[in-house]
Amino acid sequence: MKSFRKELIFDIPSRRAFVNITSEVERAVRDSGVSDGLALVNAMHITASVFINDDESGLHQDYDKWLEHLAPHAPTSQYRHNDTGEDNADAHLKRQVMGREVVVAITNGRLDFGPWEQIFYGEFDGRRRKRALIKIIGE
Amino acid sequence: MKSFRKELIFDIPSRRAFVNITSEVERAVRDSGVSDGLALVNAMHITASVFINDDESGLHQDYDKWLEHLAPHAPTSQYRHNDTGEDNADAHLKRQVMGREVVVAITNGRLDFGPWEQIFYGEFDGRRRKRALIKIIGE
Amino acid sequence: MKSFRKELIFDIPSRRAFVNITSEVERAVRDSGVSDGLALVNAMHITASVFINDDESGLHQDYDKWLEHLAPHAPTSQYRHNDTGEDNADAHLKRQVMGREVVVAITNGRLDFGPWEQIFYGEFDGRRRKRALIKIIGE
Repeated sequence: MKSFRKELIFDIPSRRAFVNITSEVERAVRDSGVSDGLALVNAMHITASVFINDDESGLHQDYDKWLEHLAPHAPTSQYRHNDTGEDNADAHLKRQVMGREVVVAITNGRLDFGPWEQIFYGEFDGRRRKRALIKIIGE
Repeated sequence: MKSFRKELIFDIPSRRAFVNITSEVERAVRDSGVSDGLALVNAMHITASVFINDDESGLHQDYDKWLEHLAPHAPTSQYRHNDTGEDNADAHLKRQVMGREVVVAITNGRLDFGPWEQIFYGEFDGRRRKRALIKIIGE
Repeated sequence: MKSFRKELIFDIPSRRAFVNITSEVERAVRDSGVSDGLALVNAMHITASVFINDDESGLHQDYDKWLEHLAPHAPTSQYRHNDTGEDNADAHLKRQVMGREVVVAITNGRLDFGPWEQIFYGEFDGRRRKRALIKIIGE
């Protein structure tokens, strides 16, 4: 069994953003030398997500508006987590809707994807350095 | 390490439906010859889900009503994604709530499940051919 | 390839609770002898979740209030699943928001975590014995 590990670094200047990381994950699969296996890609921080969906800017606007509707940032006083001095409780909620991680099949040395699948890092509390993890196992 | 790959095909005539695919996944586990490992089952399309829950028709009605409440289909003009000519922005949102994939343990050549766990394909934008992927690795 | 399997048992006296199971999963990783691989941790019941987030009691209060807002327990008659004699339809919905499972990388014999990641069992219909599964594969 082969294994491969790589971290991706993010310095998002805004509170929220979606970043397409598909090509970085594809590069990791090539670098791993794994032909058949699984790739785990996860946010290493608990106010961020890794998810798979469409690379379409209108949809990303829809996600942002929808998540803000489901878990509003303000008023920050509505959240007990923010009593600790944080103002990011909403980011912990939004991340649960979008998910922490994806697991993707690797077949013939490639991400085994449907026609529109793209991997995104979803930031909900940016303006600080964060990381995502790629872990690949297989043969 | 053994690996096994299979696609499931869906032609759902309605916009939304839940399909129990547990027996197809069990068959894939048998065909894989894997006794100990992991099975990844994921939607290959970004307006569909694979999830694990109860095979109870009342619950499926509840899911459908609840998802429509959280992310309504109409008016379609409320979503910027639909400015592209699509009318399925809500399906991209619903899929995030229900999830893209499940990872299931394989033990003694069987899906290692609790008493009520069943695997479903959740369609949120049907009336076109779609696929789900089963990828199994182990020994 | 090595594999390791362990069940965790929960007897939660209340309907809802969050339990930090990180140390149990770390112990399983040590017992598995796996240095590089993947750990799957999943609820074996369909009214419970396993998820990764912060071990902060204010945040857990926020999750509980938020989930009750998104999928209220009462009135129980609003759910068709409860026509079967159950009163836990809301728990099946809440579990979808928080997720069934997590997959965590194992590197150098340790859970490969960011600074604040902790694993929780989320109970949404307690007062009965339930289980979570830890399945580890790797080398």
